[in-house]
Amino acid sequence: MIDPVALASRLIACPSVTPEDAGAIDVIAEALEAIGFTVHSFWAGDTPDGPVRNLFATRGQGGPHFAFAGHSDVVPAGPGWGTDPFTPVIRGDLLHGRGAVDMKGAVAAFIAAAARIPDHQGTLSLIITGDEEGPATHGTLALMAWMEERGIRPDLCLVGEPTSAHRLGDTIKIGRRGSVNMWIEVPGTQGHVAYPHLADNPAPRLIRILNELDGWTLDTGNRWFQPSNLEITDIAIGNPATNIIPGVARARLNIRFNDAHRGADLVEHVRQVVARHAPRGTVEARISGEAFLTEPGRLSTLVTDAIHRATGLEAELSTSGGTSDARFLSRLCPVVEFGLCNATMHKLDEAVAVADLHALTDIYADIITHALQG
Amino acid sequence: MIDPVALASRLIACPSVTPEDAGAIDVIAEALEAIGFTVHSFWAGDTPDGPVRNLFATRGQGGPHFAFAGHSDVVPAGPGWGTDPFTPVIRGDLLHGRGAVDMKGAVAAFIAAAARIPDHQGTLSLIITGDEEGPATHGTLALMAWMEERGIRPDLCLVGEPTSAHRLGDTIKIGRRGSVNMWIEVPGTQGHVAYPHLADNPAPRLIRILNELDGWTLDTGNRWFQPSNLEITDIAIGNPATNIIPGVARARLNIRFNDAHRGADLVEHVRQVVARHAPRGTVEARISGEAFLTEPGRLSTLVTDAIHRATGLEAELSTSGGTSDARFLSRLCPVVEFGLCNATMHKLDEAVAVADLHALTDIYADIITHALQG
Repeated sequence: MIDPVALASRLIACPSVTPEDAGAIDVIAEALEAIGFTVHSFWAGDTPDGPVRNLFATRGQGGPHFAFAGHSDVVPAGPGWGTDPFTPVIRGDLLHGRGAVDMKGAVAAFIAAAARIPDHQGTLSLIITGDEEGPATHGTLALMAWMEERGIRPDLCLVGEPTSAHRLGDTIKIGRRGSVNMWIEVPGTQGHVAYPHLADNPAPRLIRILNELDGWTLDTGNRWFQPSNLEITDIAIGNPATNIIPGVARARLNIRFNDAHRGADLVEHVRQVVARHAPRGTVEARISGEAFLTEPGRLSTLVTDAIHRATGLEAELSTSGGTSDARFLSRLCPVVEFGLCNATMHKLDEAVAVADLHALTDIYADIITHALQG
Repeated sequence: MIDPVALASRLIACPSVTPEDAGAIDVIAEALEAIGFTVHSFWAGDTPDGPVRNLFATRGQGGPHFAFAGHSDVVPAGPGWGTDPFTPVIRGDLLHGRGAVDMKGAVAAFIAAAARIPDHQGTLSLIITGDEEGPATHGTLALMAWMEERGIRPDLCLVGEPTSAHRLGDTIKIGRRGSVNMWIEVPGTQGHVAYPHLADNPAPRLIRILNELDGWTLDTGNRWFQPSNLEITDIAIGNPATNIIPGVARARLNIRFNDAHRGADLVEHVRQVVARHAPRGTVEARISGEAFLTEPGRLSTLVTDAIHRATGLEAELSTSGGTSDARFLSRLCPVVEFGLCNATMHKLDEAVAVADLHALTDIYADIITHALQG
């Protein structure tokens, strides 16, 4: 048997701030090998975003193939903690430390759950990356490439992100919105404010573009998703001189979009708006992830039933919040996210209730059992 | 007799980049004392905008009182000149050097003109500052305060700025637009783009403000002035993070306005627009100068007649271009501006035609003669 609290503590003691590994993957590999997993780990990427350490572990063979996905990296601690963020400490009912809920606690709980079920049909695997909190370029995508080369493709995937809001099990995620950033640049002709006819101020054009985009209703949401939303995240001209008409104006925006849209279509729409107001304007875009939805069905029912048996709660099926690596894994198979309470994630004094770690282990064990019944 | 070319050369040799005096005022004082002027000079202001050296010189007494206003400072030379900017050189028909046209040449021409008219009715004075190209806080305003304390007030004033466009005498200025800068700040509440309901993005409010201001028609101009004009000179949010909704958005604008407006009224209008779209928004304003117009009349006719006698040209009465110290002096008496060709002012290889210096001396002497006939 594996104690999830002890294993989570060992992981918290590794200061694995992205892209540092700091021994975290070794702790995971050692625990998994001890309970019969075949473990493969590898480094991917280069400075400054890497190198990143990734791990794929598998036990059993054939179908069904149930995978757990997670990450060993954490966001920076920042100053102001009540205890050392990389020294796990139990105070009262809480285990304190960076990564306690996001998501070293969940990784430990899943390994402890797998330890309880030494014999199962099919294949149980873990997809663990050290680059989820960073650019995510050398993490889950690299693991998926590695799996594809070997013909490995799970049938169902559970991502252990901290999806619970107020009580463990109150919320699971069956989808996520997509996200795209765009950089708009409108060129003009610099000049003196006293002679505007000799200049071409790009600011009014940019304002008309942003005014139109701000009034754009992308959709009104649907059964599973809130409405898509556009935010202007930056505007920059950078002209220090009060008497100069600027020569260029720039803005940046972010759209969080639901499954009514594809990122490329949104970029094309913005390009058309820009072209209408500023024929020489340009749009650079980076799609961080497309929206995905795992329609409620066998996987979500597996998870909500296990939660109900352990807690009595009826979990809400949510698609809210930021992005996660589920945006990549959803290309392989149905994906659902479920993990600890997220109240302290990315914050000072991140902490998990010890009782939640044990309860999550119970729930994960229940999910494994039912997922691998085929 | 004084040779305006030699005197202009001596002034160019003083590198009097604002607020440096570099001996320029001494050159002027010495020349004026030699032709019967009583000269008073003083320093005003402190670092970084000062100290600045100013000069008031007067000859004769009683009315009428005709004043010439000018400045001894120059804008920085910058790199790339064909000759040393502070070593006066005559090449072909041109005297080269920083300040040749703006406006050491005109100061020299006026002194040379005054030398030709040793006896006159009334009072002839020169109001010369070393801070016209800089913030202008310790220059003409300090001279006007000094004059006010002594009850000195001219009846007519000629400012020797380079107003000629293509040929000496083709343009004089009978007014100038006013100028006001405003800084708009719209506060909001920072947050994560994935949770817009927890944030308050100030960018859309700022865009609506700027969109309304950009569509504002201040006026359509009048007989003497072109339409007032608003330029957005900067927009700044300064948010480097693609996933953060910014907490504040700022913009700066400049309005060049004609005599249909007062600066304070424009500021009030902008404040109302800001308040309508952003109740917590603020507007900081700095009025650089109000618009002024010297209605065509005795002073402008004195100048245009003298130009016509010397050149045959019918000078255009203009109010275009940037601001000058005439915006201050117009509070005292009718003010007209007339000086050299401005094609090279503030530019590399600033130069004045030697013939223009002599012709300008003739015109200024004609103006003095007629102005002091009472």
